[in-house]
This record gives sequence, structure tokens and C-alpha cells, in this order.
Amino acid sequence: MKVGVAGASGQMGSLASTTLLESDDLHLIALYDAYTAGSIGGIPISQSRDTLDGCDVVVEFSRPEVVMDNLDAWRRFGANVVVGTSGFDADRIEELRELWGNGPGNCLVVPNFSIGAVLMMKIAELVAPHYPAAEIIELHHDRKADAPSGTSIATARRIADAAEGQRRRVDSEEIVDGALGAVVDGVRVHAVRLPGLVAHQRVVFGGDGEVLTVSHDTIDRSSFMPGMLLAVRSIRDQKEPVAVGLEPLLGL
Amino acid sequence: MKVGVAGASGQMGSLASTTLLESDDLHLIALYDAYTAGSIGGIPISQSRDTLDGCDVVVEFSRPEVVMDNLDAWRRFGANVVVGTSGFDADRIEELRELWGNGPGNCLVVPNFSIGAVLMMKIAELVAPHYPAAEIIELHHDRKADAPSGTSIATARRIADAAEGQRRRVDSEEIVDGALGAVVDGVRVHAVRLPGLVAHQRVVFGGDGEVLTVSHDTIDRSSFMPGMLLAVRSIRDQKEPVAVGLEPLLGL
Amino acid sequence: MKVGVAGASGQMGSLASTTLLESDDLHLIALYDAYTAGSIGGIPISQSRDTLDGCDVVVEFSRPEVVMDNLDAWRRFGANVVVGTSGFDADRIEELRELWGNGPGNCLVVPNFSIGAVLMMKIAELVAPHYPAAEIIELHHDRKADAPSGTSIATARRIADAAEGQRRRVDSEEIVDGALGAVVDGVRVHAVRLPGLVAHQRVVFGGDGEVLTVSHDTIDRSSFMPGMLLAVRSIRDQKEPVAVGLEPLLGL
Amino acid sequence: MKVGVAGASGQMGSLASTTLLESDDLHLIALYDAYTAGSIGGIPISQSRDTLDGCDVVVEFSRPEVVMDNLDAWRRFGANVVVGTSGFDADRIEELRELWGNGPGNCLVVPNFSIGAVLMMKIAELVAPHYPAAEIIELHHDRKADAPSGTSIATARRIADAAEGQRRRVDSEEIVDGALGAVVDGVRVHAVRLPGLVAHQRVVFGGDGEVLTVSHDTIDRSSFMPGMLLAVRSIRDQKEPVAVGLEPLLGL
Repeated sequence: MKVGVAGASGQMGSLASTTLLESDDLHLIALYDAYTAGSIGGIPISQSRDTLDGCDVVVEFSRPEVVMDNLDAWRRFGANVVVGTSGFDADRIEELRELWGNGPGNCLVVPNFSIGAVLMMKIAELVAPHYPAAEIIELHHDRKADAPSGTSIATARRIADAAEGQRRRVDSEEIVDGALGAVVDGVRVHAVRLPGLVAHQRVVFGGDGEVLTVSHDTIDRSSFMPGMLLAVRSIRDQKEPVAVGLEPLLGL
Repeated sequence: MKVGVAGASGQMGSLASTTLLESDDLHLIALYDAYTAGSIGGIPISQSRDTLDGCDVVVEFSRPEVVMDNLDAWRRFGANVVVGTSGFDADRIEELRELWGNGPGNCLVVPNFSIGAVLMMKIAELVAPHYPAAEIIELHHDRKADAPSGTSIATARRIADAAEGQRRRVDSEEIVDGALGAVVDGVRVHAVRLPGLVAHQRVVFGGDGEVLTVSHDTIDRSSFMPGMLLAVRSIRDQKEPVAVGLEPLLGL
Repeated sequence: MKVGVAGASGQMGSLASTTLLESDDLHLIALYDAYTAGSIGGIPISQSRDTLDGCDVVVEFSRPEVVMDNLDAWRRFGANVVVGTSGFDADRIEELRELWGNGPGNCLVVPNFSIGAVLMMKIAELVAPHYPAAEIIELHHDRKADAPSGTSIATARRIADAAEGQRRRVDSEEIVDGALGAVVDGVRVHAVRLPGLVAHQRVVFGGDGEVLTVSHDTIDRSSFMPGMLLAVRSIRDQKEPVAVGLEPLLGL
Repeated sequence: MKVGVAGASGQMGSLASTTLLESDDLHLIALYDAYTAGSIGGIPISQSRDTLDGCDVVVEFSRPEVVMDNLDAWRRFGANVVVGTSGFDADRIEELRELWGNGPGNCLVVPNFSIGAVLMMKIAELVAPHYPAAEIIELHHDRKADAPSGTSIATARRIADAAEGQRRRVDSEEIVDGALGAVVDGVRVHAVRLPGLVAHQRVVFGGDGEVLTVSHDTIDRSSFMPGMLLAVRSIRDQKEPVAVGLEPLLGL
């Protein structure tokens, strides 16, 4: 399978490129980056989109402001595309469906390439109906811009949806503001910010005499690569022209 | 629904009885114990099996040496039975199927009433194929007879089955015997025994740059009661006359 | 050593009594409770304070509204007293010093009998100067009245005092109120409230590329008994007539 | 303070050099490496020891086979030396004391620059006498050569020394070999080896109804730099010409 990377000079794009180079079954043949030249493993990073013409799969890690134009090009080239660029909310997904039509290739938008994070959220959803209450603790390095994290908010929403009507009554009185954390769709979320941490989340389910906890600890970006490789290897088998997320590929 | 308890004087039987008494929708009407008289919530503990005749559901927590005779009686009474008595290996399940035939009631043998423990094992099975390696740490009070725990062995087996051929190569050399733990079906299991602990298990899955952990912490026997209640409430809807385990009731 | 218990019918008083009964070197000889009669291990619970006259040590677990009168009586009896009754703030300690004078016995007020909790706070104090930042996560059962816990507030204060001027700058913006927790003397504190938990605290120190965590997990009141026994055995060696806390007895 | 680095081309030496460059109060003036040329922050890496003549402090990260010759040179230059080279067992420390004599500078051998690891071991030593039993769980990446880790062995020894005679009786029977872990001076040690882990240790103390745990998680070598900087800044105040370990500098 011939693979190209768009946004190859960025952090994720260059990591994806070196990971693809080390793969036995995938062949990295071309790199594109609109802004920055260079080369990875002897493959030049071109500033022309045409360099990706002929790829079976394009891995797209460019910026939100250019991604739609890129996708239009990859579609015309007949490529399948795995999209890791951020910013794909419901509106943009709709816009993409219109743009992409029936391909001819397939397009998979992946909001989170971490297999562990995807599994954690799925597990939380499975477990939620069986416990009267849950809280989330997420812990990140102290330079993270926002609190709570996007993943913790997404997890809280999925717990709330899965455990319809499940709402723990908090009897505790907050004698210092904020002690009980943020409330997201009825689920308490606590954000810890400290140097020495990277990206961690614990989802704690409490029941009679027992607690079930799902924890995910990420130490670096390499954690995104197994999900990227899985998407590249699976995309030609995708049933619909446009899909979102790794879940179906994990059999969930 | 009229419910009776067999083995009502034992630890689990008496806990089940008091839990049933507190239920709004289930009506505890009779208690049986072959060995010890007494009463719970004003209901006398009879030494005659006939006291359970007329129950819709019998919860059976007696001893392995008498359980088959009990089950024969409850079958003749036309009751549905939730069995928590230990010792039901494959042979005994087979013996039970012959004894029970087509009922007329249903019989559910539950090796583990802890919803959390059942979920933990199921989650381990779901996650295993997506990670190259896993280890189990189980931690129990220092009076536990064996190591590793039965639950950890069962979990290791399910991981091994789900991740066929997945076998982490342990490069580390053991410079002190036992450091790398026990090997159960290719999965490393570590048993911690300390006062102050009750019953805890962590299943740790390691991948590139990330770790996913499922933890279960039990603090007392009350953790078995939600599973017991679920079984009692569901048993009349059971498809086959004899079934094993809570999993189908949890939608897993 | 002859020991008596005041408030013997209460939860802590009766637990202390049964614990003392099991001791090889301490002799429980008398029990007092102003409100409730009964007996423990064959020793009657008297409603007269005089029953404790002749004790070498009195363990006091009565109520705040009667404790000062009790202490006056135990002082007149010449007893040493270990006080576990709550409510001893700075003012009350001062009042006690005046009441107690020079004894002749010794009096030790113990705000927290848990050796683990006392060690956790001391460790936090030792570690704090060596790390740029710390946060506290405390987790309790969902019936706990307040949040955050008294122990977590005390721990935060000791960290703040020990790490003078140490104040982590929180760059994260709270996009949901409360996400970053409560601020106690500049230290973030997060309170989790779930069924299935008992009493737990984690103090997390973050530095360059590393995190040091001190965790304390309590599963039941028996955790207070080693501290009670230590206090009883040591009180006759106490240097001053009135002292506060277990720390000196732990060599800290 | 003028600082030089020996072994500047190695992993630790180059990290130390870049860290010193970023310091406001320390002035990196010279770099030496016997094997590999190059430069760091514009400072050339010399292959002549003389380049370090004139340094107030030399940070030594060379190899065990050349370190004694290096130290002899730095001593003659009148420098103070912080030694991070591995292999300083009791015999070599003795050899060093003879070589170094009275300096004139000071020499500090640091077996572990991680402030967190040093604190963890010290805390374990402080806590051990107050608990009847302890176990250690260490978790590392799956390429680590040995099990259990050197830090876990050192911690076990310090617990054993501090809690003289404290020996938990393990009642559990090992039904699979290795389940209960390795025994180091009477303390059980468990080694987990998984991808996605870096370097982690938990020391778990169990008592009546409570557990106290000290955990240390390292995510990268940057965790050694605060300890290196502390040693460089403090070495001129060192009381004896040759000392070992960071503990005194941490006020422990």
C-alpha cells in the first residue's frame, strides 16, 4: 500500500512519517507540507500537492484552515484519506460529507488516534449503566491550556447518555468553592495540573462496597501511532465513504 | 415476587436475607438452613426444606455437600433458583443440567456475584486484542489462603484466550527468584498480601507510549448484593433452564 | 497498667474497649458512659464517674459538651488521660491547660488516632520544600457531610507552611467552574464522593519529569486502634502535663 | 560559579550541559569528553582534560573505567566534583577516599540524582517502624535488563533495616510459582515489565484497617536535573572532602 503524508513537517506529521518508514507492510512514498521544506528518511517534503497523486492512502495532519482544500485534492487524486487534523465538529463533518460525496476513495476523520483513550471512553459507556455514580479525575502537565480536558468532557457526556437518569445526589457541602469539581452533564470532573505529569485520566465508578476504575496514562505522542497505522491499514475496507472515529476498527 | 433463602444462617445467606428484606419489589417470605435455627427480620429460619415450597425464587447459599439435594427439592417445588454455593466446576454443572432437566423453573449458577469483578474480566477480554502485553496485580488481606487469587487466574485465562498468540517476551532477567511474578497462560500475575487490604485487582495493558488499567476494589461483602438482586429479578426471563454467570444479565 | 474508658457505649469507646480487652500488657478494669448502660467483655458500663477512680490511664471518647467536666474528674483521680473526643481547637486546648495545671497525671489530646494519616501529613511537610507544586485528591463515601475533608485542609496548610512562597501558577483556564478544585492556602484540593469508597487521600507532588505521591487508604475504624494503644502505652513518659497529637510518639 | 562537564557527549553529560546553560546563577565554561568531539551551546567539547582546569565545580558523567583517572585530574585542578558516573560500590568509595585525601576541593558521589527517588527511600525508612508489613511493586518499560530494579532492592533493604525484626508471615500458599514475588531481606518485591511504562515504584505499607503508599513515577531523564543542580550549588559547603548521596542536601 502506497502512503503519503500531508502536513509532514508538523509534529504529528513527521512522527507519522517516521512511523510509516519503519512499517514492513506500508510504503511511504511521498511527503507534502505547504509551509516547510526538508526531507524524512530520504523522501523530500514537497510544497506541491501533486506529490501525493498516486498514493493509495493519504495521512492528513495539516492545519484546520487548509484541510478542506487538501481533502478536495486528495479526493480528486482518488486516494483514501485518514484525517488527523483537528477542528472537525458536527458542522465541518457535514461540510466534508458534501465535499467528499462518493469518493471514489474513503475518508476517515479520527478525533483521537489513541486506542487507549477510545477504549477508555467505550468502557466507561459500557460500565455506566451498572453503577449508581461516577466521577472523573484527569491529570495533565501544568502547561495545558484548558480544564477540564476535552477527553474528560467527552467521557462525562458518554457516561451521562449511557446511564440515563443516573444522577448521584451530592450530599457533601462545599466548604471551599470548587472542592467537588466541575459538573459536566451531571458527572463530576476534577482536573489536576502539575509538572511531571503528561496526560492521564481515571474514571471511577462507585457502587455498594466496591469501586471500578478505568485509568489511561499517556507518556508521549507515540501512543497515537498504533491507531494511525490501524486506520491506514483498514480504510480501504470502510463501508461508507465518510466515517468518524476508530471505534468500528476496534470491533467496539 | 416471593423469595426464599436457603443457607440463611451462613454469612452470605444472612446478608442476602437482610438485603431482600430492604427491597421494595421483592418479598422475602421464607428462610431455610439445615444446621442453625434463628430468625431474620421476624422470619423464622426453618430446618425443613418445605418452608421454601411456594417461593417464586430461591436464593441458594448452602454448602457444596448438600446443594444438589437442595436443588432437587427446589426444582420439585417449581421454583426458580439463583445458586451462590461454591464448587460448581464443569463436571458439577453437567450433573446439574441432568438433574434439572427442563425445570419447570430456571436455574442460574453464579460463580461471582460482584458486578464489578464480572465487568473487570469482560473489559480485560475486550481490551486484550488491542495491546501487545498485559500483567495483573492482585492485592488481598494477609489471611487469604492462596496466591494468586481465583479471579486473577480467571482474568489471565480470558486475556490469553482473547489475545491469541499475544505473548510479551520478557527480556528482564530475574536476579531474585519470583520478581517477575507467576505465569498463568502466558500472562504475568503478581499477588500482594498485606493487612489493611481487602480484595483488589489491577489489570495493566501496556502499549506504545500508553498504559490502560482496569482496577477493581472491593471493601466488603455488600458488593455481592446488587448482583444477587439482579439475578433474582431477571431469572424468570432466562432463556434456558440452566445458565451460568451474570454476564448475559449485564448485557455483555 | 490499669486502663478505663469513658464514653464506652459510643462507637469509638466500645471499639477502644474491645481492643484493650485483647491486649496482653494493658488491663481494662472499668467502663464509664454517662448515657447508656451495658457491658463489654463482662465489665459493666457504669453511669458513675467514680468507676474510673484508680485507673492508671483513662481513654476519653465522650462528647464535646461533657468532656471538660470529665477531664476535671480524671485529673482529680490522678489518672493519665488520652483524649479522643473531638472539638479541641486552640481555645479549648488553652482552657484545658488551665484546667489541668500540673496534673498530677499527663493529658494527651489526639485529634487524629490514625498513624497513617499522621505520617501522611508529616511526609507531605517533609517533601513540600523539594517540589515546585502539589495538589491533593481526597476521596470519601458519598454520605460525608463536608468537602473538602478536614484532613485534606490540614495537609494543604502544612504543605503551604513548609513550602513558603511555593505557589504553582495555574495556567489552565477553567472552562467549567470548579474543574481545578478548591484552593486552600494556595494548594489545590479535589474532593471525590462516591459509594464504595471509605476514606482515602492522595498528595501529589509534581516536579521536572517526575511525580511523588503519598496515598493513605482507610477501610475502617480499626485503623485508629494502633494509635490509641501507642498513646496509652506512652503517656506516662510524656514530658509535659498537656500535649497534643501523636507525632512525638512516632519519633517525627 | 564556573562549571565544567566531563563526559559531555554522553546522554547524561549532554543533558547536564544544556541544563547548566539554562541556569541563571551557574556558568558553564568548559566541556570535556575523551571519545567524542562536538559542541553544546557554542562551547566546544574538548578531548583534553586541561579544558576543565579553572572550573569551580566539575560535573563528572564519564565511564567507570576512566572515572578514577579523571577524578585525580580534577582534584589536582583544585575543583569540587559532583560524580554521577555509575559503579561506586563500597570498595570504590574507599579507593576514592584514598585518592582524594583532603582535596583541596570537595567530592560528592551521587548514586541517584532523582530527588523523588531519594525522598521515596527516606520516607520508606521513616514509615517502616510503624507498620507490621510492607511490599514493593516496581514497574518499568519492557526493555529493562534486570528484575527487580536496583532502587527497589535498595528500598527493601532500608525497610528491613529500619523495621528490625519486622517480618510479615505470609500465610498464602503459592499455587503458581512466583505469585508472591521476590524476597529481598524479608520484603516482598514485585516487578512489572510492560511497554508504555517508564520507571515507577510503589511502596505499600499495610496495617490494621489502613494502607499507606509512597509512589514515585519518573517519565524522563529531566527528573535527574534538579538533583544535579542542587549538588553543584551546595558542594562548596560540604563538610567532608568526600561524601555520598543527596540526602544531607535535602535536609533528611
